[in-house]
Amino acid sequence: MSEGNPLNLSCPLPRNRHNHVLMAHGGGGALMQKLLHELFFPAFKMQAGSLAHDAAVIEIGGQRIAFTTDSFVVKPLRFPGGDIGSLAVHGTVNDLAMAGAQPQWISAAYILEEGFPIDELETVTVSMAAAAKDAGVTIVTGDTKVVDQGKGDGVYINTAGIGVIAHDLVIAPHRIAEGDAVIVSGDVARHGMAIMASREGLEFESAIESDSAPLASPVQDLVESGADVHCLRDLTRGGLASAMNELAREELAIMLEEAAIPVREDVRGACEMLGFDPLYVANEGRFVAFVPAAEAEKAVEVLRGNPLCADAAIVGEVVKRETAPVLLRTSVGAARILDLLSGEQLPRIC
Amino acid sequence: MSEGNPLNLSCPLPRNRHNHVLMAHGGGGALMQKLLHELFFPAFKMQAGSLAHDAAVIEIGGQRIAFTTDSFVVKPLRFPGGDIGSLAVHGTVNDLAMAGAQPQWISAAYILEEGFPIDELETVTVSMAAAAKDAGVTIVTGDTKVVDQGKGDGVYINTAGIGVIAHDLVIAPHRIAEGDAVIVSGDVARHGMAIMASREGLEFESAIESDSAPLASPVQDLVESGADVHCLRDLTRGGLASAMNELAREELAIMLEEAAIPVREDVRGACEMLGFDPLYVANEGRFVAFVPAAEAEKAVEVLRGNPLCADAAIVGEVVKRETAPVLLRTSVGAARILDLLSGEQLPRIC
Repeated sequence: MSEGNPLNLSCPLPRNRHNHVLMAHGGGGALMQKLLHELFFPAFKMQAGSLAHDAAVIEIGGQRIAFTTDSFVVKPLRFPGGDIGSLAVHGTVNDLAMAGAQPQWISAAYILEEGFPIDELETVTVSMAAAAKDAGVTIVTGDTKVVDQGKGDGVYINTAGIGVIAHDLVIAPHRIAEGDAVIVSGDVARHGMAIMASREGLEFESAIESDSAPLASPVQDLVESGADVHCLRDLTRGGLASAMNELAREELAIMLEEAAIPVREDVRGACEMLGFDPLYVANEGRFVAFVPAAEAEKAVEVLRGNPLCADAAIVGEVVKRETAPVLLRTSVGAARILDLLSGEQLPRIC
Repeated sequence: MSEGNPLNLSCPLPRNRHNHVLMAHGGGGALMQKLLHELFFPAFKMQAGSLAHDAAVIEIGGQRIAFTTDSFVVKPLRFPGGDIGSLAVHGTVNDLAMAGAQPQWISAAYILEEGFPIDELETVTVSMAAAAKDAGVTIVTGDTKVVDQGKGDGVYINTAGIGVIAHDLVIAPHRIAEGDAVIVSGDVARHGMAIMASREGLEFESAIESDSAPLASPVQDLVESGADVHCLRDLTRGGLASAMNELAREELAIMLEEAAIPVREDVRGACEMLGFDPLYVANEGRFVAFVPAAEAEKAVEVLRGNPLCADAAIVGEVVKRETAPVLLRTSVGAARILDLLSGEQLPRIC
């Protein structure tokens, strides 16, 4: 190991008072971006641009494939609309779909805590298998590790996935252009509020179920419709607002229309009651698509034809940046800045 | 979720008194095999045969590739000869190499415990980057999650990897045949004893360093030499004896020669002192190769030409099974059964 500054960074890693890992470092917000841009990207010599993407795109024998990984530490393990098993499949399958790939193979690696009931392991595994079948992927390899009691939390799951890009479109953040329409695939903030409700034992007037779902089929519909899809992004940790902040490039800004963003009434009520902004709440079955404005209406129509995207809507546009990277035009016409929060409002959401 | 017996197994999952996960379920021994064969394989509809392999072999556009995953929970995070970062690279790269693939891309997914020092995260990350460079692989995608203090142990790392199989050999457990020679690539039991020593603060006469190393280059040497390599297997959790037990098919047995198995004197001494059998102690830079007897001498010579395999030796042969699947001919000529232990002698070895 080399001495001194092992990354040979031009300046030492700024610490910002944080010498230890905080929950917020895993929250998809500003602190996590800091970790990525100041530690992981330089160490692994990754292009920040390539990593603004959910999956790596590599070429094997002339065929483009997407490759991605995610670990799942959601708490509780089961929640309305899913569990850690189905979530672990959806999360990885969706990262592949966002690169325009058809997900095909995934891995399943468990870190089990000593004392975890075998019954629960069986339930999670069966759920994972069912979610994989539903998403059209095969679990082809895996791993099991066990850690001492008090060094885990029942079960953590990592999935990695491989998908094949079977078309010629380049779907990537750098293709986002001024004038693009921003389309959201459905109502937002359900996953986060479902977790929150089940974690805190809250009961709302109606049950809020997670939106967790595999998104390859609507993406395929979009691609097959001939739409010139510029970029796709699923709205996980940090929600819609954080995803938009990650994607707004230097010279571009994203202007969202508050009134156009679908949020279910019960979800909005739960958010208000608990002090959450639905635009920052995590989803696990929602994405945004950037397409040229002229193709936006048709793209929405195509998406609405898929049961997972019945509420798809145009929610904003890409404009030249003047002030902040992401702005929200509220119902009274004012524009408010949607900043990157330091971390996720709800830790261990996925 | 379906009710009752969700796997539709012909008989209910036998529990053997274990209703909870034990440390031994992660140890690479009989309990882990039970979990694989009774839960994961049927749930994921995996062929047990395909999973006797370290990596899945899939085909993309006519090109065979290998895909694998491993999580690393080694304790302590740093040990003589490596750390969790280098180990996480070697483990996955080696699983790909064992399928005869040239490792190319890997992922890096961290599960961080709140409060873990950023300094240590940097050290581990730099080590991972260096190991990847040394092994000729690129880290192309990643993930970071943070769990509450007391729900992790500093850092756990998952790596998944993709390698390209650039030759026509089929290197897989089903090709092991009667008469094959069993070649081990070097002295065994160092990784486990290095971990043990650093965990317990033991000092032996000489420092025992882990053998952790990337094994793609000796495998490539072997393949390029034209040897008809039937099967390869790295000797991780459970060591040489467990690997042989996993590979001995119904009608075949593996007969090892005790005197031929290279074990360093200091390692043997440490094992004796602590009551470990070196044949069951984990390695992270050692493998066995099964080749036809007629090609064995040449294969050993080829391996010895690689600095990682200077002590390669023929240590046994594949014979028709008469009694146990794995036997050890001791120096006095008696044959003793090498059984699968229920778990690893040393938990959290990788």
